[in-house]
Formats: sequence, structure tokens, C-alpha cells
Amino acid sequence: MNSDYTQLTSAKRQELLAQLRSELDAYRQKGLKLDMSRGKPSKEQLDLSDGLLACFGRIATEKGAADYRNYGILDGVTELKAIFCDMLKISPSELIVAGNASLNLMYDAFQRAMQFGLLGNPPWNEQGKIKWLCPVPGYDRHFAVSELFGAEMINIKMTPEGPDMDAVEELVKDPSVKGIWCVPKYSNPQGIVYLDAVVRRFAALKPAAPDFRIFWDNAYMVHSLTEEGDVLLDLFAEAKRLGNEDIVYQFGSTSKITYAGAGVGFIVASERNIAEIKSRMTIQTIGPDKINQYAHALFFGNAEGIYRHMDKHRALLKPKFDAVDRILTDRLAGAGIAAWTKPRGGYFISVDLLPGTAKRTVALCKEAGVVFTGAGATYPYKKDPADANIRIAPSLPPVEELVTATEIFCTAAKIAALEVLEG
Amino acid sequence: MNSDYTQLTSAKRQELLAQLRSELDAYRQKGLKLDMSRGKPSKEQLDLSDGLLACFGRIATEKGAADYRNYGILDGVTELKAIFCDMLKISPSELIVAGNASLNLMYDAFQRAMQFGLLGNPPWNEQGKIKWLCPVPGYDRHFAVSELFGAEMINIKMTPEGPDMDAVEELVKDPSVKGIWCVPKYSNPQGIVYLDAVVRRFAALKPAAPDFRIFWDNAYMVHSLTEEGDVLLDLFAEAKRLGNEDIVYQFGSTSKITYAGAGVGFIVASERNIAEIKSRMTIQTIGPDKINQYAHALFFGNAEGIYRHMDKHRALLKPKFDAVDRILTDRLAGAGIAAWTKPRGGYFISVDLLPGTAKRTVALCKEAGVVFTGAGATYPYKKDPADANIRIAPSLPPVEELVTATEIFCTAAKIAALEVLEG
Repeated sequence: MNSDYTQLTSAKRQELLAQLRSELDAYRQKGLKLDMSRGKPSKEQLDLSDGLLACFGRIATEKGAADYRNYGILDGVTELKAIFCDMLKISPSELIVAGNASLNLMYDAFQRAMQFGLLGNPPWNEQGKIKWLCPVPGYDRHFAVSELFGAEMINIKMTPEGPDMDAVEELVKDPSVKGIWCVPKYSNPQGIVYLDAVVRRFAALKPAAPDFRIFWDNAYMVHSLTEEGDVLLDLFAEAKRLGNEDIVYQFGSTSKITYAGAGVGFIVASERNIAEIKSRMTIQTIGPDKINQYAHALFFGNAEGIYRHMDKHRALLKPKFDAVDRILTDRLAGAGIAAWTKPRGGYFISVDLLPGTAKRTVALCKEAGVVFTGAGATYPYKKDPADANIRIAPSLPPVEELVTATEIFCTAAKIAALEVLEG
Repeated sequence: MNSDYTQLTSAKRQELLAQLRSELDAYRQKGLKLDMSRGKPSKEQLDLSDGLLACFGRIATEKGAADYRNYGILDGVTELKAIFCDMLKISPSELIVAGNASLNLMYDAFQRAMQFGLLGNPPWNEQGKIKWLCPVPGYDRHFAVSELFGAEMINIKMTPEGPDMDAVEELVKDPSVKGIWCVPKYSNPQGIVYLDAVVRRFAALKPAAPDFRIFWDNAYMVHSLTEEGDVLLDLFAEAKRLGNEDIVYQFGSTSKITYAGAGVGFIVASERNIAEIKSRMTIQTIGPDKINQYAHALFFGNAEGIYRHMDKHRALLKPKFDAVDRILTDRLAGAGIAAWTKPRGGYFISVDLLPGTAKRTVALCKEAGVVFTGAGATYPYKKDPADANIRIAPSLPPVEELVTATEIFCTAAKIAALEVLEG
């Protein structure tokens, strides 16, 4: 157990600081180059999908697949749609399977709303300044999209149950509030699974804006770190039950199932929404890469194939999350300067440090050769009002590097905290 | 040689009409279902690239390629960029290699100009009604993009040398004219190769709009039907020589080199333009499907590999173009009711029928079981003012079907002409 840093005498703090600084210096002299900045799968995880590459070789001789080499089919190949429909409990008319990136689908959905408007409503471009709800901490690439399109981003506090729904319900009374980013299962970066009650409140949401959309980025739907997994209530089904299904755009991809750079992205929405999206998408493209889609269908076989594949990812990821948690516990528990999440899935651990120390901690880590996601990145405009949150991405480095990087992180966090406490 | 329909007596026309109608009726009774509507590669052409599928299998063991399975690299893999740079005589900083569709790149380029503006100029969305130059006949999917974004499309007459440059130079004096669609080599649908003088005038163009762009869709750059091929003057190089390189966005893809549905698209532009595009693209996506890109690099080997591969396409396509031309000549030459192009490359033959007979001809063909591209499709808003132009796409059907379809086309065109001449 660590002593509580906030209760130490100044003399003791000075002593500790000197000791920690020399510790960091020792790391610095090792000339490390470690990258903990992004939620990238490791080489071993990517290797799990190399069977996919062999599936490409089978396509030329697979009955019916030959036509997939040609133009056409805007919403994806039948075989992969069937697998996703089974996994998502939807019908093919509610699904578009597209290119390699769900981020691209989200950006394009945002762009079309800006340019053309949604279901008969005026383009967002013509509705004055629009606003967007951003649960924080959250995913920097989401915030970058809404920022690029000039939306005013409003922070929504994340609770352990999901976004603060009282705030959401209050804010959507403003018709210039057009949407919200959500990563509802194993949220980025905290790993929170939205409670059923939260999902139900989303499903029943009645925003003043008729063209409000929940951007439901279900990026980690099958990415559990436990064997039993978590069950997220199905927002689309709930909204449908209430006749409110037009409010949802659900996104997902196989980026962290097969290859991060060459997976398959998809969007789930009501038939009305899908028809509108397709009517515009058909001007943008003749169709997606159906060869990659079909290879995925061959590789998975069926929805069960996806779940079994994810078991293998879990076996590789779980020890890494455990290692980080173990070191954080060893070195920071009880010190009163850090709290962190213990996610049951997803790709990140979220750490809240002593306010005012996140930037300094990341800078100290960088000096010692370890790159973390920039402090503030988990907030809109990269502005963490408390300068406290840091996202740890344990997936990429080998465990040994992960251990070193996390140790350095703890040392840096302690130094930054002591500096602030000393004033 | 056919008799000149415009010189026949009415009695002779009536006799011919009866004969042609019974001819068409005979076709109708065969219950044919032929599709000549789109420029799709044939099965045999697609088979030429099945070696590509085997290249995927090699990726897992190729040195350095393993990282391509992960996130990153916004502008494409080094190896394929190198091959395209060699083919296009450009440097890697002037190139982005992206997803499977150059159409998507054109749409996105248009969208970014609408939403964000180009090189410091205001978004097109904020500049009132914009106008766009459309050489006609042209490519329907181009026109669909500018129409979707609400641009007012202005027809520019195509000459055998390229677009009417006097008209272009005059019209770009209007600052609301923001761009032009061009398929400069083996143009869609006429197969025209822009003369050097035309390309030079494009390179030297000084539009009133500082944010004017030539959308140079070099879709058929290596798609010759002759062994020697045609040489298109390099617009980008010419523009660069004049310090005018920001005016060009050049597009291309391997859609008609490898697979129409699963090729690789690219954009060539000045470093300033590329930097701007990347600054926005990096919000839209983490990167393209690099696995497909790398498989293409393995498959081609080098630029020479692309040229040798195109020889095989030519061997399959040339007989089809010849067959269509032979039948058109046999059945329509001298009749005074049709003129058509004899392209040395590309995917189409353009036929100009007697004014007022194109729609009727396509309708008659449809009755007889042959689908042609809708009359008017080669014009903005699908409005061919003369109702004369029809695009024939010889690539997809087997020669036997092609012969039947073209014969039916000739019969239909004659009926439509005689109906009009009879008044």
C-alpha cells in the first residue's frame, strides 16, 4: 500500500520527489521508445486473422462469388450481411456493409446531414450553429469529426452507468442540438457498459430537433475481456418498439476483429434512414470492396465464428489489461492521486490523475521515451477542464514493454502530483 | 451500302418500316435478356486478375507487409505508390492512394470544397449558386455528383479534339464557375483523346474563381485498343511548368485494370492540394485498405506489369469493339441517320442518331429484350437537347450476344428514324 501523498509533510514530499526523479532519469537513460498512444491490435492479434488472407485465394472458385469482382451491390454482399444480421438481430434492409472504416461511415453520415439534411429537414448547414453532445471522457476521433464540421461540442459527464441522462434529456430540448456520440459498450476510454435504464432513456428520447441522431458507435460489441461477456441492451430494437427508430445510427466494424486497416465497416439504421443514405451513397460510389467482404464471410462462416474468434483476442488482451492494473495498483493505490477503471472489455483503461497533472505526466513520460495519448485528447477541443484524464491503450506493446511503460507512467504521475502538492 | 433514308420516297419508307418492324418482332419473340447498359468488364477480363487473389495469401509472410494489417498510413502503401508514381511521373507527395473507387474520391473532393472551401477560399456552400462545366456527351456519374451538390451544370460541346476550349475560356471568366469534368483520354462515351493543344489550354487556364478545379478523371489512361496506344499530354506536368498546378485534381483507379469492384483509386494533385486534402481526410479515416493496395503492388510488380496486363485486356476488348463497328457499318453506314465514334481505347462507342430518335430507339430495344444506357444519360440532368446520343458499352456481353444486341439496335434506330422522317 502506498502512503497518501496528500497527507505527507513537505519534507517527505521533497524526499520522494528527489527519489522519483532519479528513478525517471534511470529510465530516460535506457533510451526507450515505447508507444502506448493508440488502441492498435498487437502483431499476435493480427496474426489471428491471417486465415482471412487464404480466403481471398478461394474466391475465384467459390460459386457465385465471381460476380463480386465486378461493379455493383451498394449495400454489401449477401453472405456477410447475413452474418452481421444474425449477430445484430436485424434484417438486411436495416444494414449497409461498406468499406474498411466505420469512422468513414460516421464522417459521411455527418457530412450528408450537414449538406443535404435528414428525412426532409433542412441541411444542418442551413440551420445556424449546431450543437453536439459529447460524453466525456470520450473518443478523440469522434470529437474531431464534430469539430471539423463546426458543431459546438457540449460535454456530458460520463457516470459508471453511462452518460448523465438528466443532462442529455435537458439539453435535447434545444433544437440546435443535433446529436450525440456514444460508445455504449466498453466505452472509449473508460470501458463503461451503458446500463439498460440508460439505453431505454436513449430509446425514448424525444429531442426538439426532428433531425437529431444518436451516433451509436458499437465499436466493441464483441470485445469482452471476460468469458461470459456483458450484455448491452439493444438500442435499435428498443427504439423500434417505441416507434422511435429513426433516431439511431448504429456503427460498427471488424477493425478490431480481423485487421485494423483492412476490416469491414457497417451502419445499422431504420429502413427509412437506410433508404435515404443509399439514395446519396449511390452517387458517391458504385459499391464497396465486395471481395474483402466476401473473404470475411468465408473466414467467419457465421456469427458464432466471430464469437469464437474473439475468444482468441481475449486470451491475448486479458493478460495485458491485468498487467497494467497490477502495476497501477502496486504503485498508485492509496496514494490519493489517481483513480482508474477496470474494464471488462474494449481497448482502454482510463486514469484520472490529480487535477492539473495530466499534461505534465504525459510530458514526463515522453522525456523518458514513452508516448501516451496526449492529455486532453479524451475531451472535445482537446481541453480537459481538470487536466486529469489519461487514456492507456494496453493492446499493442508486448507485456514486457507494457510493464515498463506503466511503471514509468506511475513514476511520472507521482512526480507531477508531488510538484502540484508542493505548489 | 445502305440507301439514304432521308432521300427515300414515303412509299419506300412505309415498306421498310413494315419490314423492320417484323424483324424487331422476330427478335422480341426470342425472349432475349441482354444488357449493354454499363461499362462493366467481362468475366474473362476479371479472370485476368485472379492472380491478385493469390497475392493476398503471400502478405502474411512478406517482409514489412505485416504492419499493413494494422491502422495507419493515410496516403497509401509505399510499394503501390512507387508503381503509380512511375506510371504517372509524379512524386509520392503528389499522390494519395485510397479505397476502391475513384468516384468516391471525386465525390469527397467536391464535398470538401462545398463544406470547407479550397486553399483559404470560402466554402462553395457559402458562395451562392455555383456552376460547373460539363463536356457533352459525358459520364452520367460525374453529372450526378455535381447535380447532387446543386451546381448549375453548363454543357460544353465536345469536338474531336476535346472540349470546346473557346467556350471553356469564356465561361471561366464567371467566378461562380468552379470546375469542369474531364475524361481526357478515350473520353466517356466518345473515346476522344484530348489534343496536346487542348491540354495546354487547360494547363494555362486562368479562371476568375481562385478555387476553380479541373476534375481530370484519367479513368482510361492505360486502356488502349491499339498496340501502340495514344499519348495524352500530361496536364499536371504542364500546369506545374506554368506554376498553375493547384488547378488540377487528377483521378484514376485500377477498377478496369484489376477488379471493377475491388480495385484501388487514387488522386494526384499539387503538394499544397494534397496537404489540404490529407488534413481533412485524416478526420474522415485512419487509413485505406492497405492489404488490397499491397496485394496490387505484388500483382503488378512494377509499372511495366500494368502495361503488360492491359495487353491482355486489349486482346479481349478489341474484337468486341470491332464487332460492334462492323455491324453498325453494315447496317447504318450511308443511311444518313447515324454517326458513331471509332475509339482507339476506353470502354464506349458513342452513337449520334437522327435528332429526336434516341429515346425511341432505346425503348424499342428494351421491348426486344436489350437494355441500353438510357437515352439522355450522357447529358447533365439526363437531358440530351437533340435526343440523339446513345452510349454503347461493348465490354460485358460475349461477342455473340453483342452481335445480336447491336443488330437489334440498328433495327430499332432505323424504325425510329423512319417514324420521324414520316412525321
